[in-house]
Amino acid sequence: MIGHTPPATEHPFDVDTRVDRSSDGRFEATLSDRWNALGGVINGGYYVAVCLRALHEVLPHPDPVAVSTFFLRRGAPGPAEVRTDIARQGRRISAGEASLCQGGQELVRTTATFADLDQGQGLTEVLAKKPDLPAPEEAIDPIGDARLPGVTMTDHVEFRYPDSPGWRKGQPSGDPSVEFWIRFTGGRDADTLSLPLLVDGAAPAVLELGVAGSTTLQLTTHVRGRPAPGWLACRVTTRYVIGGYHEEDFEIWDTRGNLAAQARQLALVLAD
Amino acid sequence: MIGHTPPATEHPFDVDTRVDRSSDGRFEATLSDRWNALGGVINGGYYVAVCLRALHEVLPHPDPVAVSTFFLRRGAPGPAEVRTDIARQGRRISAGEASLCQGGQELVRTTATFADLDQGQGLTEVLAKKPDLPAPEEAIDPIGDARLPGVTMTDHVEFRYPDSPGWRKGQPSGDPSVEFWIRFTGGRDADTLSLPLLVDGAAPAVLELGVAGSTTLQLTTHVRGRPAPGWLACRVTTRYVIGGYHEEDFEIWDTRGNLAAQARQLALVLAD
Repeated sequence: MIGHTPPATEHPFDVDTRVDRSSDGRFEATLSDRWNALGGVINGGYYVAVCLRALHEVLPHPDPVAVSTFFLRRGAPGPAEVRTDIARQGRRISAGEASLCQGGQELVRTTATFADLDQGQGLTEVLAKKPDLPAPEEAIDPIGDARLPGVTMTDHVEFRYPDSPGWRKGQPSGDPSVEFWIRFTGGRDADTLSLPLLVDGAAPAVLELGVAGSTTLQLTTHVRGRPAPGWLACRVTTRYVIGGYHEEDFEIWDTRGNLAAQARQLALVLAD
Repeated sequence: MIGHTPPATEHPFDVDTRVDRSSDGRFEATLSDRWNALGGVINGGYYVAVCLRALHEVLPHPDPVAVSTFFLRRGAPGPAEVRTDIARQGRRISAGEASLCQGGQELVRTTATFADLDQGQGLTEVLAKKPDLPAPEEAIDPIGDARLPGVTMTDHVEFRYPDSPGWRKGQPSGDPSVEFWIRFTGGRDADTLSLPLLVDGAAPAVLELGVAGSTTLQLTTHVRGRPAPGWLACRVTTRYVIGGYHEEDFEIWDTRGNLAAQARQLALVLAD
């Protein structure tokens, strides 16, 4: 089966990750300027989402359970191409790779294993707790009407924090650990194809160390469940900044209290 | 530069990960039966190490800072081929991909970013502690002379645990979190090219849940520093087993108290 077609909504996530098959395994895409992150650069998770849309077209299973992306070069809004390659087609699991290219240059390379999470059987033991957050309606919108310079993706992804983040007040807390709510604006619920964007969709936790920003080198997302509709609870932590390199661990839980995704990226802090 | 040539020792790690260039970007390798894990299958980390030896030959930087491997099919001892592809050659960072193939079938695909960790500059903030272990000489060798059935890699990698692991006594503890020492036998110190083997080189933490074993689907290793010679302290944790899928987080610290590697894999538990 080519199952679970993504919802054909007019939400910017669906419009901007659309791919059109041009030839065997190749797809045309158009990179949008609606997913710009700090610094006005295209968000890494958006590139991943475009790659996954193409892989979803060529692989038989619906859910990207393991996704790894290497960020090679910066792209710009405009036409792009996704070249896919199938590495394995099994009964339970399939795997493939997508290179997102622009002007003959490869921007990112994403490898992914797809499966059907409905068929996940066997042991379940959850040994950690979901984030402990106040209800979204009692939490704070850290962006509001004051868009961050150059950032456009906050028009399509919104947040609720228990307290206004230190970096937002110009008072970094020194503790790069944070929990908050996330969702797409406009009632577009997250699915397993959009979780790998959301895990890269928030302000880097290292902003609480007073750095100016962070550039992702590599991002792995493990999708662990299909999320329930509505707000998603995030737990984000950086523990090791060494010589400028740091990891960021990102968990997403749904409102039923189930883990939906677990991600880690290796990134480089940007000096002021 | 093609720098930091791996040590040309006769240790099985160096002998068994040797690659010989056969043509442009292609290398001949011989998969050994000396790195078999539980179940008598070739250890996943060994495949990764063979891929990295080939990538080290074609990329200019010495240290694999981010390594992601997808495990596609099981191989067998004997001849194999590694096909490499350079994705980027930059001044500070290079990236490439290696496919390890046998009999025309791709066994694993490894993508990696290489850099020079000596050039790592910028912020250092370490917000978690190193494993709290007794000295190796006061700790227990869980294998000793009683090799596990089918397992050969414990002839070349040795361990010291604070206490004999529950799974080893037939009494799984129920807590898949463990700390222990690891090193190669025979005085072969670990380097940045061998850490991605060691992070997959121990018994899976989920054995403490009473499962028979675990099969790795995808493994990411971030090498965070060049390890000091000698024993390495490991911290291994699984927190989420969901429908048979589980992550395993693996940290390796050196005896100077520096983090050397941080890894996560997505795996499937094996029923009895």
